[in-house]
Amino acid sequence: MKKNIIAPIVLLILFGSFCSAQTSITEDFKPSTLNQPGKDYPQVNSQGYVRFRIEAPLAQTVTVTLGGKGGTKLTKAEDGSWTGTTDIAMDEGFHYYHLTVDGGVFNDPGALNFYGSVRWESGIEIPAHDQDFYELKNVPHGNVQQILFPSKSTGTSRRAFVYTPPNYYKDQSERYPVLYLQHGWGEDETAWSNQGHANLIMDNLIAEGKIKPFIIVMTYGMTNEVKFGKIKEFDITPFQTVLVDELIPYVDASFRTIATQTSRAMAGLSMGGMETHTITLNKPDVFAYWALLSGGIYKADEIKDKSKVKLIFISCGSRENPDGVKKSVEDLKSAGFNAVSYVSENTAHEFLTWRRSLYQLAPLLFK
Amino acid sequence: MKKNIIAPIVLLILFGSFCSAQTSITEDFKPSTLNQPGKDYPQVNSQGYVRFRIEAPLAQTVTVTLGGKGGTKLTKAEDGSWTGTTDIAMDEGFHYYHLTVDGGVFNDPGALNFYGSVRWESGIEIPAHDQDFYELKNVPHGNVQQILFPSKSTGTSRRAFVYTPPNYYKDQSERYPVLYLQHGWGEDETAWSNQGHANLIMDNLIAEGKIKPFIIVMTYGMTNEVKFGKIKEFDITPFQTVLVDELIPYVDASFRTIATQTSRAMAGLSMGGMETHTITLNKPDVFAYWALLSGGIYKADEIKDKSKVKLIFISCGSRENPDGVKKSVEDLKSAGFNAVSYVSENTAHEFLTWRRSLYQLAPLLFK
Repeated sequence: MKKNIIAPIVLLILFGSFCSAQTSITEDFKPSTLNQPGKDYPQVNSQGYVRFRIEAPLAQTVTVTLGGKGGTKLTKAEDGSWTGTTDIAMDEGFHYYHLTVDGGVFNDPGALNFYGSVRWESGIEIPAHDQDFYELKNVPHGNVQQILFPSKSTGTSRRAFVYTPPNYYKDQSERYPVLYLQHGWGEDETAWSNQGHANLIMDNLIAEGKIKPFIIVMTYGMTNEVKFGKIKEFDITPFQTVLVDELIPYVDASFRTIATQTSRAMAGLSMGGMETHTITLNKPDVFAYWALLSGGIYKADEIKDKSKVKLIFISCGSRENPDGVKKSVEDLKSAGFNAVSYVSENTAHEFLTWRRSLYQLAPLLFK
Repeated sequence: MKKNIIAPIVLLILFGSFCSAQTSITEDFKPSTLNQPGKDYPQVNSQGYVRFRIEAPLAQTVTVTLGGKGGTKLTKAEDGSWTGTTDIAMDEGFHYYHLTVDGGVFNDPGALNFYGSVRWESGIEIPAHDQDFYELKNVPHGNVQQILFPSKSTGTSRRAFVYTPPNYYKDQSERYPVLYLQHGWGEDETAWSNQGHANLIMDNLIAEGKIKPFIIVMTYGMTNEVKFGKIKEFDITPFQTVLVDELIPYVDASFRTIATQTSRAMAGLSMGGMETHTITLNKPDVFAYWALLSGGIYKADEIKDKSKVKLIFISCGSRENPDGVKKSVEDLKSAGFNAVSYVSENTAHEFLTWRRSLYQLAPLLFK
């Protein structure tokens, strides 16, 4: 009998706290860490809600793409500013967003911009419980440098960013393996440093002695020449030529790399994973370590020469397709591959998934 | 008699062409080279007029800061877009601008953003007749790299960008002099590469054999901690400490520099010139080459030890204070200094002045 009395009470308490979780927003909002210098808004609270404040006194409607379905509709305050808070807590990590002001798409003047969706978008950062691994700390820092490499196939000087580890300049004798790391559709060669903090992830892993230092090269994957809905029409050939025939030789000639297949990895997120998948299968003599981050899977029967592949790493967010990723890796293992899966908890197709994936991948490379 | 007939006709023709120059806009507009990928607007014509097109169908007013007094007021077209053309031709070179949409300040979604006015602003490039010297060409390219250097005085890891010349990585024995190059008020350490094309100016000068290669270091001058109207209250001490006691030793330890006074220069534009002026006078044992770009002048009696100063370079745009610059340099010469003035024709307090100034300055350094 006692149980029967308690059960409805427990249910009532649970339901009550569920309701309050939906409606009670903690008033501890702080400016986003990705705000432009001196800007108070947008703000983020400890629950992951985001509050916006936009000056546009004569506007009729201001909405923000972040939030639940349809985004967040801001309302006009007495001082002429437009304010509003997302109706849901956002996932931890980085999110792109933009404003619609009277029907026009603009960025939030308070936030820094990041290249995604084939344009520079506003960005916001929801502090993550595990953000320590990508924070800027008082440790020796590697450098991220812009290189302009000649490309005969496209008739251009093309840009790439190269991460060199902290001791690169001090010990002029040491040579390093190289990871070629690709962004996703709508992004470019700036994404892995700006949104991904690839350099800080590496600095921290190296400082903690968790990895042997390596170089990372990030270039534009030419992914945005094709419309998002027509990605299957994407022709890998032009980018494969730029990467394999032009960039890799330039990097090997310009940096102290170990210019061998077993010291070369390729990884990519989302459409960069699709590129990685195709190029590694086409060029098994070039890359020994293959990684797809929210970017599809490998099937064992696609791979011609098993002995060439030192590692296959496949990851995604728990809100994507974790079962598909895990099953693919199990199948690869059964077929005799050194395959590793990783699922980022409580994240979707977004940068915290990929930061965590790089953090998991790096210690497995160049063993 | 003949003369008397011709004179009014000549006057009439001159007046006529003056009027037509004011009103006749050549319809050869092309997308600005600083547009975001795939964006058709803003556009620039061969005369330097700029045409804007902004989507904001429900807006009531859209204005642009570029143009004559009060900027350019856009008008609504039938398709709901807002369009307009500047009422004046803009100076050649780079200009910052932004939109005001219904009273709110936003960037042009068509244009790339550049850090100026203590925010990321839209930027536009008016092709210059002499732009060849800062164009991206098929020549060997140096790299621009982000370094994060430890700063005890501010308790932070601080960012700088370092330009290393094309052969830096190939010939591991060569050491290089260093130019410390400062941005202006409202800008940051990204300005000299993004807006100034300092790296391309160097690449081209080196390719043409016009200079001996050197390294350039660009860091944040902490100039924006003070409001624009109160620049005289600026305290140089914190930045001088970061630059002289923290950054220079870090650069000398991390790069193959020639770590001597005679192989070290400091230059700055606008408020960066003010910083250069103060720091070089305070620290004559650190820098031998001093340059102010639209950033004030030196007086001979400010300089304690003439023998320490290898070069004083002072420049500005012809629409600034060329007479003051020239007079200052004449006075310095009379006082026995190796002083050089440069006036950029038909430019004001803007980046084409400073790109040209760097182009003039570089061959004079480290002789």
